[in-house]
Order: sequence, then structure tokens, then C-alpha cells
Amino acid sequence: MKMTVEEIAVRLGASFDGNPSAVVERVAGIRDAEAGEISFVANPKYAHAASETRATAVIVEPSWAHPCPASLIRAANPEQAFSRVAEWFAPPPVTFEPGIHPSAVVAPDAIIGSGSYIGPHVVIESGASIGARCVLVAGCYIGHGASAGDDCRFYPNVTIREHCRIGSRVILHNGVVIGSDGFGYAQEGAARRKIPQIGIVVIGDDVEIGANTTVDRARFGRTRIGNGVKIDNLVQIAHNVTIGDNAVIVAQVGIAGSSSIGARTILAGQVGVAGHLTICDDVIVGAQSGVSKDIENRGMYLGSPALPFDKATKLIAHMSRMSNLKERVAGLENRLAAIEAKAAKAKS
Amino acid sequence: MKMTVEEIAVRLGASFDGNPSAVVERVAGIRDAEAGEISFVANPKYAHAASETRATAVIVEPSWAHPCPASLIRAANPEQAFSRVAEWFAPPPVTFEPGIHPSAVVAPDAIIGSGSYIGPHVVIESGASIGARCVLVAGCYIGHGASAGDDCRFYPNVTIREHCRIGSRVILHNGVVIGSDGFGYAQEGAARRKIPQIGIVVIGDDVEIGANTTVDRARFGRTRIGNGVKIDNLVQIAHNVTIGDNAVIVAQVGIAGSSSIGARTILAGQVGVAGHLTICDDVIVGAQSGVSKDIENRGMYLGSPALPFDKATKLIAHMSRMSNLKERVAGLENRLAAIEAKAAKAKS
Amino acid sequence: MKMTVEEIAVRLGASFDGNPSAVVERVAGIRDAEAGEISFVANPKYAHAASETRATAVIVEPSWAHPCPASLIRAANPEQAFSRVAEWFAPPPVTFEPGIHPSAVVAPDAIIGSGSYIGPHVVIESGASIGARCVLVAGCYIGHGASAGDDCRFYPNVTIREHCRIGSRVILHNGVVIGSDGFGYAQEGAARRKIPQIGIVVIGDDVEIGANTTVDRARFGRTRIGNGVKIDNLVQIAHNVTIGDNAVIVAQVGIAGSSSIGARTILAGQVGVAGHLTICDDVIVGAQSGVSKDIENRGMYLGSPALPFDKATKLIAHMSRMSNLKERVAGLENRLAAIEAKAAKAKS
Repeated sequence: MKMTVEEIAVRLGASFDGNPSAVVERVAGIRDAEAGEISFVANPKYAHAASETRATAVIVEPSWAHPCPASLIRAANPEQAFSRVAEWFAPPPVTFEPGIHPSAVVAPDAIIGSGSYIGPHVVIESGASIGARCVLVAGCYIGHGASAGDDCRFYPNVTIREHCRIGSRVILHNGVVIGSDGFGYAQEGAARRKIPQIGIVVIGDDVEIGANTTVDRARFGRTRIGNGVKIDNLVQIAHNVTIGDNAVIVAQVGIAGSSSIGARTILAGQVGVAGHLTICDDVIVGAQSGVSKDIENRGMYLGSPALPFDKATKLIAHMSRMSNLKERVAGLENRLAAIEAKAAKAKS
Repeated sequence: MKMTVEEIAVRLGASFDGNPSAVVERVAGIRDAEAGEISFVANPKYAHAASETRATAVIVEPSWAHPCPASLIRAANPEQAFSRVAEWFAPPPVTFEPGIHPSAVVAPDAIIGSGSYIGPHVVIESGASIGARCVLVAGCYIGHGASAGDDCRFYPNVTIREHCRIGSRVILHNGVVIGSDGFGYAQEGAARRKIPQIGIVVIGDDVEIGANTTVDRARFGRTRIGNGVKIDNLVQIAHNVTIGDNAVIVAQVGIAGSSSIGARTILAGQVGVAGHLTICDDVIVGAQSGVSKDIENRGMYLGSPALPFDKATKLIAHMSRMSNLKERVAGLENRLAAIEAKAAKAKS
Repeated sequence: MKMTVEEIAVRLGASFDGNPSAVVERVAGIRDAEAGEISFVANPKYAHAASETRATAVIVEPSWAHPCPASLIRAANPEQAFSRVAEWFAPPPVTFEPGIHPSAVVAPDAIIGSGSYIGPHVVIESGASIGARCVLVAGCYIGHGASAGDDCRFYPNVTIREHCRIGSRVILHNGVVIGSDGFGYAQEGAARRKIPQIGIVVIGDDVEIGANTTVDRARFGRTRIGNGVKIDNLVQIAHNVTIGDNAVIVAQVGIAGSSSIGARTILAGQVGVAGHLTICDDVIVGAQSGVSKDIENRGMYLGSPALPFDKATKLIAHMSRMSNLKERVAGLENRLAAIEAKAAKAKS
């Protein structure tokens, strides 16, 4: 795939400055682009990067006036224009023809919906069922009695333990684990006896779960992930957790057992949520925060322990002025000592 | 499986209020339960949830007097009674018949104990040995010369590198990695040369390790996990770490190289432990803490850097009162300025 | 492999105290060593451990005068001497003979370089290419059109999505995921629509990536990991991130989308980096820190939010003295009140 700067501008309905016949073959980020590539700048923060780019062409706003060595294509919404261009240059998406690879091991009583692809070395145990038009790429494992709805895509090495239930249009990325045992033990002297984890995981429709994320089965009943929930990579969801519809859980978050996350709530990267807590709907928790109490009011929260956003940022500001406060106290001590010394002198 | 409220109460030796012939088919958490399900409330914190539950039946204490729309079964220990009920309704546990699946690749000189199940696509390399009555579910990999004792269960896609040694009755959940190289380099100018990681991992008896957790092999000698240790999901154990018997390591903890964790010590979720440290026996480190020094006395620790629990909570309390302290200092400054102004006036 | 203390000392050109004919069979850490094992002490911190060791022999400095029950071998650089000994006792490294295992599924148009080993159950999709002398251990997956250079080693269950490009001499440990979709959605009411992730991942030469680490493909263009970069276990690299040559990323770090990490920069364990940031070359960020702003000057940074090292440690010192500051303020208040009371009395 090759296009000239002029061809791209014409197809976007945009104007351009520079060499109309310069050839573009790929897209790239502004800092990373090489000759033969097209990029974009939407954020003025990247003006400096634009001045140093090696890209052949850059999509900018119509009024763009910063220096840039590349040919410029001027579009009302550079990011959106770039998205269109990126799709023209994208390789055709990988497709998997329906059918069961001969190396897959599928139990005779497992049900595979029509139009589904079951890749090499996939294992589907007895009593499991997969809906229509699903894609299970190589190495996936579907446990006994587990089920998935229609139009799911499971990338390589996804593993789902017995009896878990996955909705339709669910995307599970490489290495996702669904239904591993919850972390529950009863103390017996110094040792711990395993508490049977006999519940399941239930995942709604239109859910996406990132690479190597783990979702534990319930001790009893179900760990439940609502419809439309989006979960990033390397997240830990413990036993009996409930996640409301359309919640967003960013990478490396950990949610401890039996906690409940509200609908549309967003947990930013590396957040930890302690066990047996309730976070209500429409909450945003900032990155690396630690939630140690229920959150009962929508809004933003930050810090470890997490506080409402205003309080947390005030606390950070106070802390950064602590050396100033210490100096003020030392100043007060000196001035007060001077007054006291004078008073003592006057008395004697 | 279906039982009426009356049948459940009789079998538990418990009394009940409500509809004796209401039918229960499954168990669930109080907030998550639907019609046809039975739940329980042990913690008064969940009284509100009980008042809104959709469960058909709820197990409560004999003296329970909060509103609840479900039929109530009154038992002396609701949680324990519920555990019994949950086991009645649980699907029979999945069993794997002894034998080696024809798609498994087992080296001719590998030893497989009697009664063991070797699932589809499992690979067992030369010189490895697996004890009696083990279950290796699909896709597991046992490296050259590695060994496992009796009665182990390795869930799908567990991988164990060469020469590592696993005890008996060890459970490794999906995606666990044992024996990956430690993270060790010698600097050579700007670049780094890999230091050979020629040690192993040794895991005791009765250990359980959660999904996608990684345990690095030693640079030399061994990374050692004691008997009865329980490790949750997505934990990182670096090279040459030693974990004492019956320690508990919660999800997403990271322990850096050559550190030693005492017996029965508990590291809560997302804790980090720096390298070359010793944490003694019977310590509890609170969630998200960062241990940057040896811990020589049993007890609780919290914070990043971690402090003894009392100091850490006092510090958090002080910080939350910082704006108050700032106001007190400002008040002192005003009062002192007034005294100084008066003194100056008196002098002039 | 067995050697006597005398044989080891002679081969090292070192002197020794104790039993010349004591037999050594393995190496181990000083705290962990058993009879029949040899260890070393380089750091005086371990003198106490040396006094309690069960090792048969310990390598120490020539001037070592602490008590130790083992035979002592005295070498100028105990750590280096021990490294040599550890290599003598190490089992021969595992080798994999070139060839394609019959259970591997390799697309007819995939290219496999000469001398490469393609292990059991490996899947190589159409259009992919693997260089010369590579080792792909069991269960790896190479997506459509993906490529790897020469002399790479991919441990079990590494999965690489379509079109990603890996350099030469790259080591990917068990369970590494390269090229999973970036975490990008456009909000549509309460729900989120997936933004196609049509870029790739490009990894340079001499890179090593730890077990179960995930690297997302770019939204467009490429997520780029430079030459010589070393990444530890369970790290999350988001879409469109750029990592400069010879950077070091320790375990459980998370780098959010579109951020750029400089050459030779070191991120210690559990660090988080927010999205769209630039960290310059030659920076060291301390463990558990949270980087929320660009870092424009080389040096050390610490804390969440991360500050220059001096400021951060001063802040920690201030915080640990907060109860002292509170007492000083209370003292000032008492003294000032006494002065004010006296002044009021004098006036009346």
C-alpha cells in the first residue's frame, strides 16, 4: 500500500503544503515516525516533537503554524483524519475460517455453534458449549460444562475453568484465566486448610479482558462481571467480586474478595481495592490509589488510603509545603524565645 | 438439584419462617442472589443488602430481626450452615481419569507415577518425573529433569522449567510459571550482559500458587518456597528468594531478589519487598506497603516505606490533620506579630 | 559432580581453613545451604548468617575473621570465585536439537531459518518468519505475518500476535504476550465502543522480557522496545509506548499508553507511569513510585507522585518527624498563651 501526499489530502478533502508526490507507506506516532510514514499532531504538547519528526507527512490543524520538516496535510480534526488514514494503511484484519483444527481435542458431547473456528491444540472438555461465529485461537482451554455465547474471540492460551459462563461478543486476550480458585483458607494451627471454591464466574455481553488478567471463581455463587465491562492487562479479580455494567478497570488493578464495583466506575492503573467493600456507581479512582473503605458518593478519589479528590490533592499540596511549615515553626520559636528572654531580663 | 426451604431447614436441624415449599436450586451471595437461590447473612453490615435481596431463602442467626423479603432459615452459625448447603448444591467436582492423553508428548525416559492423569498437549521433557495420582490438565509443560511429588494438581498451561523440584500435594493454577530466569545483568558500558541463572526453584509440600504467578529460578542454589505456603494470583517471586513455612502471599505482591520471608508471615495485596532483606516470622504487612528495610520483630507493618502499625497509623492521622496544623501555625504567627508590634510601639 | 574443599581451593588458586577432604556436591545461598553444599559471603551483613550456616564450605575474603562452622576458602573476590564454582556444579544447559516437532502446526508459507528448533504444539501462522538458530519451546504461538530475527529463544507458551516484529538474540520467558490489543475505547453514552488497534509491536535486538509480561500493540504505528532493553516479569507495556535502548524495567511496572522512556533509564519494581509522558535518558525511578509528569532531567526520582530524590527523601524525613512538629506547635501555643495572659493581667 502506497499513496502520495496529494492522494491522501484529496481523499481526506484536506489541503496540504509541501511535496505532493512524496510517497507514504505506513503510519506512526510523531516521535517514532520514519521516512515514508505519515503521522499527526492534535495536542500542542507535541509541537516540539513535530519540529524534529522524520515523518514524510504530518496531519495538522488548518491553523497550524509551528515549524515542521514534513509535508503538512491540514484537516479540521487531525486525530480523526489520521484514524481514517491509519485504517487505509492497516493490513487486512486476520481472519480465521470456520472449522475445527484436527489437532484440537473436543469432547464428543461438547457443543460448537455454527461458523465457529476452533484453532490448533484447543481443548474443549465434556459438557462445554461454544456459541456461533466464535474464534478460539490456538491453545485455548474450555473446562467441563463451561459456556460461551455467540461472536466471542478468545486469543491464544486463554483458559476457562469448569462451569464458568461467558456472554456474547466477549473478547479475551492471550493468557486470560477465568475461574481459577479463590484464595480462601481456614487456619488450623500454623497451617491452613483449603476452603473449597465451588462457585463460578459469570461474564456478561460485550466484555473485553486484557492479556494475562485473572478472574477467580466464587467460593460459592458467582464472581460476576457485568455487561460492557472493559478490563485491561494483568488485573486481578478475586472470588465473589461483582463488577457493574460498563465499568472500566485499568492495568494491574487488584480487587480483593467479595468487593463490589459500581456501574460505569473507573479504576485507574495499579489501584488496589480491599475486600468486602462497596464502591458505588460513577466513581473514578486515580492511579495507584488504595481503597480501604466503602465509597458511597460518585466522584473522583485519590491516594492510599483513597480520599475524595479535593482532600487528596490538598493533602499532597500540604505535604509538598511541609519544609516551609517547619521553617515557619522554627521562626516562631526564635521570635518567642526573644520575647521571653526580654521579659525575663525586665523582671530581674 | 432442587430442595424446598423446609427440606433444607430439616437437614440443617434449623427452624424457618416463610414459605416451606419455596424451591431453591442454587446458592449465591446476598447482593447477587436471584429467585430460586439461597444466601446467608453473618455480618450485620449486610442487613441492608438482606432487606433488598431477591433470594428465595436466606440463612440468618436465630435472633435475626431485620426486614428481609426472603424465607428465613435460622441457624446458630449461618456461614457454616451455608457452607454445608453450598456443598449440597455444588456440581460434582471435575475428575480426570488416570492415563496419558495421546496428544501429550512425554519423553521416553520421563517417569509418570501410577494413577496420574497427563492431559492433552502436555509436554514432559527428558529426565522429568511426576509422582503418583497427579493431575496435569491440558497444555502443561514440565522441563528437563524437573520433578513433582505425589497428589499434585497442575491446571492448564502451567509451565515448569528444567531441574525445578515440586513437593507433594502442590496445586499450581492456570498459567503459573516456575523457574524462569532471574533478572540479573552485569553492566558493560551502556549495555548489560546476562548473568547465567543456573540455580533452580524448590517448592515444599502442600503449597498452592495462584494463576499467572511467576517464580524465578536462583542465580545459583535455589529459590525456596517452604511447606504449606499459599500464594495468590499474579505474584512475582524473584531469584534466590526464600519463603518460610506456612507464609501467605496475597495477589500482586512482588518480592525482589535474595530476600527472605519468615514462617507464617503474611504479605497483603500489592506489597513490594526490596532485595536482600529479611522479614522475620509472624509478621503481617498491610496492603500496598513497601518494605525497604529488614523487619526483625513480629507484628503488623504498614506504609511505603513500611513502619510498625502504630507509627504508620499515627502518621496517616497526622497527615489528615495537616491543614489543621497549618492553621494553628498561621494563628500563632498572627498572635506573635501582634505582641511584637505592641512591644515595638511601647519602645518607641 | 563432587569436589573436595581442597580441590576447589586449588582450582581457584585460593587458600583454605578446615577439612581438605570435605565433599561438596552443590552450591547454595548462605542462609539456605545444607551439608554437602558450598556458599559464599561478600557482604558483612551476612556475617551472622555465616555463623549459623549448615554449608560444608564457604568462600570468604582473605581477611575474614568472623566465626563460621564451615570449612573456609579464602579468595580475593568471594562473589566472583563463587560464580566460577557455581558454573562447575551447574547441570549442563538444556539443549534443543534443530528441527520441527511433528505436533507443531506450521503454515506452509511460514519461513523457518536454518538450525531452528520448533517444539511440540508450537503454532506458526501464515506469513510468519523465524530466523536462524532460534529455539521455540513447547506451546508458543507466532501470529500471521509476525517475524523474529536470528538466535532468539522463546520459552513455553510465549504468544505473539499478528505482524509484530522481534529482533535478533531476543529472549522471551514463559507466558510473555506480545501484541495484544491496546486498551482504547470511544465513549458512546454509558457504553464504550472499541477503537481498532491496528498498529504493531517492534522489539529491537538483545532484548529480554520476563515471564507473563504483556506488551500491547499500538493503536496505530508501533509500540517500540529499543535494543538491549531488559524487562522483568509481570510488567505491563501499553499501546504506543516507546522504550529507549538499554532501558531496564523491573517487575510489575506499568507504563500507560503513548509514554516514552529514555535510553538507559531504570524503572524499579512496581513503578507506574501515567499516559502521554516523556521520561528522559539516564533516569532512575525508585520502587513503587508513580510518575505523573514529564521527567526532563537525568537523575533519581522517588515517590507517588514522583519527585527528585532529594526532595522525596526530605519529604519522607519531614513526615516521620510530624508528631515532633505537632508537639512544637502545641508548646508554642502554651508559651504564647502565657505571655498573652500576663500582658492582659498587666493591662487590667
